[in-house]
Amino acid sequence: MKSSTSKAAVCHTPPTVVQPDKEALIRRLNRVEGQVRGVNKMILEDRYCVDILNQVSALQSALDAVAMLLLENHTHGCMQGAIKSGKGDEAIDELMTVVRKFAR
Amino acid sequence: MKSSTSKAAVCHTPPTVVQPDKEALIRRLNRVEGQVRGVNKMILEDRYCVDILNQVSALQSALDAVAMLLLENHTHGCMQGAIKSGKGDEAIDELMTVVRKFAR
Amino acid sequence: MKSSTSKAAVCHTPPTVVQPDKEALIRRLNRVEGQVRGVNKMILEDRYCVDILNQVSALQSALDAVAMLLLENHTHGCMQGAIKSGKGDEAIDELMTVVRKFAR
Amino acid sequence: MKSSTSKAAVCHTPPTVVQPDKEALIRRLNRVEGQVRGVNKMILEDRYCVDILNQVSALQSALDAVAMLLLENHTHGCMQGAIKSGKGDEAIDELMTVVRKFAR
Repeated sequence: MKSSTSKAAVCHTPPTVVQPDKEALIRRLNRVEGQVRGVNKMILEDRYCVDILNQVSALQSALDAVAMLLLENHTHGCMQGAIKSGKGDEAIDELMTVVRKFAR
Repeated sequence: MKSSTSKAAVCHTPPTVVQPDKEALIRRLNRVEGQVRGVNKMILEDRYCVDILNQVSALQSALDAVAMLLLENHTHGCMQGAIKSGKGDEAIDELMTVVRKFAR
Repeated sequence: MKSSTSKAAVCHTPPTVVQPDKEALIRRLNRVEGQVRGVNKMILEDRYCVDILNQVSALQSALDAVAMLLLENHTHGCMQGAIKSGKGDEAIDELMTVVRKFAR
Repeated sequence: MKSSTSKAAVCHTPPTVVQPDKEALIRRLNRVEGQVRGVNKMILEDRYCVDILNQVSALQSALDAVAMLLLENHTHGCMQGAIKSGKGDEAIDELMTVVRKFAR
């Protein structure tokens, strides 16, 4: 089995997964948390609806990017590993359940 | 001009808008902030990618609901008011710009 | 009441609506129909899944654009008209029901 | 290598892929084609915008379902096969490119 790429999540049993870009992910989510607080402050300060909606949209885009990164790590790491060790169909069913949640 | 419904944002110039359900919105965003922190903690604790993705999806749904509520307030309040005072086309162009951001 | 812009749908009762860009819309939908037939042919000819999915994605984008155009016509025309004639809240509730269907 | 499940696309080189539910997919796309013609007819007949938008939304849902089915076939078949034959990272990058197109 060839070693995981730098994009791959490193999976263990019971499943603990060290995200390859763990620190970057945590920084991103800290920023997302700040964006949520920013939206909350805009509502508190009676700011214009459209300005708030634009911030919510920016926040959603930031979360979408985090989700795609996690999905990329998962497919290169855990899912690929599961397929190589003969548990492919279960891993792919699990993947598709997640993909459907993020699909339009 | 008939008075705004309870769903309508109350708009002023320069635009400050008191959301009709301001306290509920703030509570919801406090909960969203907690959800973001929860996702961050899961990454820190090396939790399974799919479990994290499920939480991100729940978080997105919570934000979608907030966005739709703000959009509802905006259309019933500010946009309706703008149309009644003869600034309809500008208000509708502005609305469509926002709708496109949340459209799939 | 100022006259509708060129973007506005022209509404009548019982609701018949002449889309301002009716011919362009019909041409677009003819093209979408061709794209659907193209996807069907790809499946028939056992083409590669990813190539088919890319075509389905292009097709969805074409439909999204049609939907946004119809929504723009509707808001500038019918909805604005309803608001000016005092039936705003019903028209906005109807709009929001549609927007939710196209929101992510 | 365990044999593909009934959900798996059967892949060949140069890539031709027999979809496991090929006839059902073709029937679905025939129905989608009919839905597109239906939408076109509604525009031609000056039907109410909101009624047309509801049909476009139904059409989008039908296409989403086709896309998810193709994606499921692809991941169980071609992608799983590629991973088992050592071309996993390329196959997963290709998958992620497609998933991003259908993600919100």
